[in-house]
Amino acid sequence: MSSTLGVLFRISTWGESHGAGIGVVIDGCPPRVALRAEEINAELRRRRPGQSGLTTARKEDDCVEILSGVSEDGETLGTPIALLVRNTDARSSAYDEMQHTYRPSHADYTYDAKYGIRAWAGGGRASARETIGRVAAGAVAKAVLRVLCPQMDVLAWVEQVGDVRCEVSADRVTHEMVESNEVRTADDSTAARMRESIMSARNKGDSLGGTVRCVVRHVPAGLGDPVFDKLEATLAHAMLSIPACKGFEVGSGFGCSLLNGSAHNDAFYMEGDRVRTRTNNSGGIQGGITNGEDILLRLAFKPTATIMMEQETVTDAKQAATLCGKGRHDPCVLPRAVPIVEAMAWLVLVDHVLRQKALEH
Amino acid sequence: MSSTLGVLFRISTWGESHGAGIGVVIDGCPPRVALRAEEINAELRRRRPGQSGLTTARKEDDCVEILSGVSEDGETLGTPIALLVRNTDARSSAYDEMQHTYRPSHADYTYDAKYGIRAWAGGGRASARETIGRVAAGAVAKAVLRVLCPQMDVLAWVEQVGDVRCEVSADRVTHEMVESNEVRTADDSTAARMRESIMSARNKGDSLGGTVRCVVRHVPAGLGDPVFDKLEATLAHAMLSIPACKGFEVGSGFGCSLLNGSAHNDAFYMEGDRVRTRTNNSGGIQGGITNGEDILLRLAFKPTATIMMEQETVTDAKQAATLCGKGRHDPCVLPRAVPIVEAMAWLVLVDHVLRQKALEH
Amino acid sequence: MSSTLGVLFRISTWGESHGAGIGVVIDGCPPRVALRAEEINAELRRRRPGQSGLTTARKEDDCVEILSGVSEDGETLGTPIALLVRNTDARSSAYDEMQHTYRPSHADYTYDAKYGIRAWAGGGRASARETIGRVAAGAVAKAVLRVLCPQMDVLAWVEQVGDVRCEVSADRVTHEMVESNEVRTADDSTAARMRESIMSARNKGDSLGGTVRCVVRHVPAGLGDPVFDKLEATLAHAMLSIPACKGFEVGSGFGCSLLNGSAHNDAFYMEGDRVRTRTNNSGGIQGGITNGEDILLRLAFKPTATIMMEQETVTDAKQAATLCGKGRHDPCVLPRAVPIVEAMAWLVLVDHVLRQKALEH
Amino acid sequence: MSSTLGVLFRISTWGESHGAGIGVVIDGCPPRVALRAEEINAELRRRRPGQSGLTTARKEDDCVEILSGVSEDGETLGTPIALLVRNTDARSSAYDEMQHTYRPSHADYTYDAKYGIRAWAGGGRASARETIGRVAAGAVAKAVLRVLCPQMDVLAWVEQVGDVRCEVSADRVTHEMVESNEVRTADDSTAARMRESIMSARNKGDSLGGTVRCVVRHVPAGLGDPVFDKLEATLAHAMLSIPACKGFEVGSGFGCSLLNGSAHNDAFYMEGDRVRTRTNNSGGIQGGITNGEDILLRLAFKPTATIMMEQETVTDAKQAATLCGKGRHDPCVLPRAVPIVEAMAWLVLVDHVLRQKALEH
Repeated sequence: MSSTLGVLFRISTWGESHGAGIGVVIDGCPPRVALRAEEINAELRRRRPGQSGLTTARKEDDCVEILSGVSEDGETLGTPIALLVRNTDARSSAYDEMQHTYRPSHADYTYDAKYGIRAWAGGGRASARETIGRVAAGAVAKAVLRVLCPQMDVLAWVEQVGDVRCEVSADRVTHEMVESNEVRTADDSTAARMRESIMSARNKGDSLGGTVRCVVRHVPAGLGDPVFDKLEATLAHAMLSIPACKGFEVGSGFGCSLLNGSAHNDAFYMEGDRVRTRTNNSGGIQGGITNGEDILLRLAFKPTATIMMEQETVTDAKQAATLCGKGRHDPCVLPRAVPIVEAMAWLVLVDHVLRQKALEH
Repeated sequence: MSSTLGVLFRISTWGESHGAGIGVVIDGCPPRVALRAEEINAELRRRRPGQSGLTTARKEDDCVEILSGVSEDGETLGTPIALLVRNTDARSSAYDEMQHTYRPSHADYTYDAKYGIRAWAGGGRASARETIGRVAAGAVAKAVLRVLCPQMDVLAWVEQVGDVRCEVSADRVTHEMVESNEVRTADDSTAARMRESIMSARNKGDSLGGTVRCVVRHVPAGLGDPVFDKLEATLAHAMLSIPACKGFEVGSGFGCSLLNGSAHNDAFYMEGDRVRTRTNNSGGIQGGITNGEDILLRLAFKPTATIMMEQETVTDAKQAATLCGKGRHDPCVLPRAVPIVEAMAWLVLVDHVLRQKALEH
Repeated sequence: MSSTLGVLFRISTWGESHGAGIGVVIDGCPPRVALRAEEINAELRRRRPGQSGLTTARKEDDCVEILSGVSEDGETLGTPIALLVRNTDARSSAYDEMQHTYRPSHADYTYDAKYGIRAWAGGGRASARETIGRVAAGAVAKAVLRVLCPQMDVLAWVEQVGDVRCEVSADRVTHEMVESNEVRTADDSTAARMRESIMSARNKGDSLGGTVRCVVRHVPAGLGDPVFDKLEATLAHAMLSIPACKGFEVGSGFGCSLLNGSAHNDAFYMEGDRVRTRTNNSGGIQGGITNGEDILLRLAFKPTATIMMEQETVTDAKQAATLCGKGRHDPCVLPRAVPIVEAMAWLVLVDHVLRQKALEH
Repeated sequence: MSSTLGVLFRISTWGESHGAGIGVVIDGCPPRVALRAEEINAELRRRRPGQSGLTTARKEDDCVEILSGVSEDGETLGTPIALLVRNTDARSSAYDEMQHTYRPSHADYTYDAKYGIRAWAGGGRASARETIGRVAAGAVAKAVLRVLCPQMDVLAWVEQVGDVRCEVSADRVTHEMVESNEVRTADDSTAARMRESIMSARNKGDSLGGTVRCVVRHVPAGLGDPVFDKLEATLAHAMLSIPACKGFEVGSGFGCSLLNGSAHNDAFYMEGDRVRTRTNNSGGIQGGITNGEDILLRLAFKPTATIMMEQETVTDAKQAATLCGKGRHDPCVLPRAVPIVEAMAWLVLVDHVLRQKALEH
């Protein structure tokens, strides 16, 4: 369904960039889970514009109001949780020209093609502000999993920006390391080079893409619902729904084509009474179901479409035109993509944990 | 939902490799669409085992019985279409050892971890035979789109097997070219080299992975349902649910990270009264909605897990063990993955076409 | 799904009686439909507390804020429409006793049994305030159907309150007649007697139940999705989800058991080129699909559970207790049930109209 | 969704009366539940035509083939369970006239109006044979609940046929009593009078309607998902989807309108450590959630539409016509409705039990 995701832990997001606000309704959240606005706000701050010199200058506090579903004592009620973040710093005038002229590689033309109408200011529903609902709901999913699977953890970081690549092994990355630099990559020297690349692109009015890695640790074996809701399939669905995401890999990903089966297979062995694998080309998922090893994902994000350079395009009156971007935009979405990727992973996982609880007896 | 896919054109597949058969129920198919068993069988023959020296030797006719939903005159009734393919050549004895010993990188262990029981013979539900339901349903989806969008066409081919790569441009590939060689790649000389690689792996008891490209031509603009059912998100969901699929790209995919926005953006221009783009890094989808250009996908498939070489593993009694594969297996799934990829694309597209019809007024 | 209803036109409601407010997100609404807050407020005023001497004295303006999905020019965008109504006159002190003592026949005990926690103030999610989301969404559904099926109309009225019954034929009832009296029944003299019954019950601290009739006129033939989403099945689902609803009839309803088939069957005849039926025991639906005649429904609503009389009950500590209701409650829900029943009918119909549009070709 | 029902325990039925057969796919069934074909066949025999002199003379063995989802040892695998019953005694010639002439109050006209095509022989998908899929799936649901809620039991019986009414108290009815007479009512003398009424209607070529009562015993408190999937709402959905069902009551039903709140409310008291109610006007459900008392339902079924008497109607060429029924039909559906009502109740309950398991922690 269009703006609804999940089978048991279902989120419905709404909101346009320059409308009253952005929000999400979470239906199916288990009761008696401690939940404070501050937990949600902490994640929203990681996604917020204006958090560093690398991001758009739009100033938004992005503080959440919990409208329902949580008791006065800060516990979930089992009823729908409605979360609201008001828009406060929308400046629509920067979009005047884009009211009739389509930005190349943005959603302006396709929204018109689909709906015959569009909220042109700020990109409307196709703005990155839409992801506030995802991040807020992801914080709730995380709070639930802290109760149901206390060890489980999701960690994402920027692997690549343009041609600058972070080579730190997934096993060694920590939240502290990632949050210690404004690019959200996994070592300081790479962070500095990535920052330089991004600032250089910004100065030219241009933009950059890159990749994000995501690892989920301490996952119970048995999550995932073959054949269509295999865990990697629902993860891919969730990740490809993030604005600007162009590619998805689990485990060995595209690299799998260069290995023979004998090299690619993950040999099983016993570690105490736990079944383990010697390698993890499977990325923690076999036959669509977790095997208890870390889930390993990799995502590609394209360069921001809105650039401050003149480009060939057309108008909604079907006339040739040129357009030079205005408004406040991230020259590179990667640093802010990190909390969004984590949120989508939490959301997919909580849904599968609940589905598995239903099956067990 | 686990074995159900789609919102309006919904398929529910069922069946184990060594059970009575494999089937699918299609609910929500529009009425008055001509549909003959032969159309379905033609696609099943492309997926069938034993179709060439490259595939498993299991002998199955894989002829479909249409059990419901089609009139005596061969027109869909609008009621659920049930399709059945009987299993006839199951040889479970080859799986005796695997009853208790897990194949590395197969689903044996994870099915046990999830369900506490598994149909060990032939891989049960995790067998590639499961894809019969997908291909049969895909043929129905194609028949419907032949009526609703007569120009639309889906074409997939093998791009890479191991390190052998086909460099033919997507624009030039035809169904005839792909079906003219048993590897299903896009030129004869590459086909010969891929065939050689596969036979060489088979002779060693080993296996190979690779990539498939898929293009959808003559797509109307306006398909896709943001924000969660963006077209690429539902395509990724469908593709990652195919056994052995490890990666998904739309348009520029992971390559997008190496381009600046100014190079990556697809400039708009008018071709008569039609909005076109000069390049197609978007892969035909912008903001989750088709723009009328070709949809371009790329999928990674891992090497077959079951190999005829001794591997380290464990048993369901949690004892260390070694296992050497038996039974009849494809040394490389790529040639047979082609019709499956096409089927999944048809299924996703027909669902979005129906969803868009509901919105238009 | 719990707080989500519909397949294509999907609503997700949220909100507790004494929380921040009540709201609904509508996903799947067609674009380019004129929609003004005033249309929604007009329906909310019919549902509002304090609208007459017959209803609870809680004072709520119940004015809607449209948070998303509608353009500045007042047209739907095709994106999710979020609607918010703030709670302003919650007085939780009246509920102090009910924090631990269960009201007989209310949802206090069962919410504790299900969730292990409940928002005791004002009944929480089980309050009639929950229906604000339904009525607001129903107003949007009505606006959509005004465009897609301009002739279609939904009309409900109170047929019975206690033992006072309105005998006006369904064909003769009009919106004006129903809205002209505060009971919302179909003739003035019955209205007066019903009013008297309700006031008499209120004076005793007691409450009354009754029945509502609902007719849908000018329905196109062909709506409804056998076999599980037959139109009467989805209507029954929607109506039985209204608080206090205990019974549902379509057409002849329970009366059908007293007629032979020869008397019950609705003979077909031609009226010009339109197929009509001489009688309408089918209530406009045959085999789960509309035949173009009026849809005829009848609903039963129980007496309000919260009464100002001492009753035997138990506490959440599982101790025997007595309880005498406090707070502000309707002595009879029927007058305010009328706009809720209409809203649920509009919501079911718009979903089926969209589903049928998807099938037609 | 049209032929799919349930959120976690999902059934998809298919099949036309005179097609190859009737079937159902059950997706989401928990693993490791003992299931034998004989358990399903036992329920199908209760639904089968030709089981007594009161039913249609069509001769069908209605033996199920389990095509998937069950191990060789007779345990569910957690994968989709496909069930198939072949049609063997279809005689389409009796329907020749009905190919173009619509039976009054049957689905002939509405299927044409909706789909523009219909399987006229035997009523196609609108035949009572469609209910085989429901009864077979219901037997599986019952097997699952025998494991998850061993005490729970569903019991239905015929309360009324025409004007003959069974007055036995719900508490005293047993499966043995109901199955001991071919009408499936709750005492022998009423059974004899009902039988007489039915035979008398049959001899005139006419038909009769009636009511079924259904009680669910030993239900855990806490089942049901407000606000839209309240237990009574999903039960009403399921029951109204049964062919010929025209009315639904839970607990006091339409009778609730004649009681004041003080008489209607079910006082709570403690029975040991269990919360009980003195009366059960709530029918075991309060606020959409079970309270642990018996669930009490009442359903109305209309007289069979196909009668052997001449009736006014029209043809598909929109010409006036008369029609006298042919073929083999039940003069009264009530005796065979009993196992169908029970099946639908089991299906709804198992889905809610699984949903509740997902929420609990």
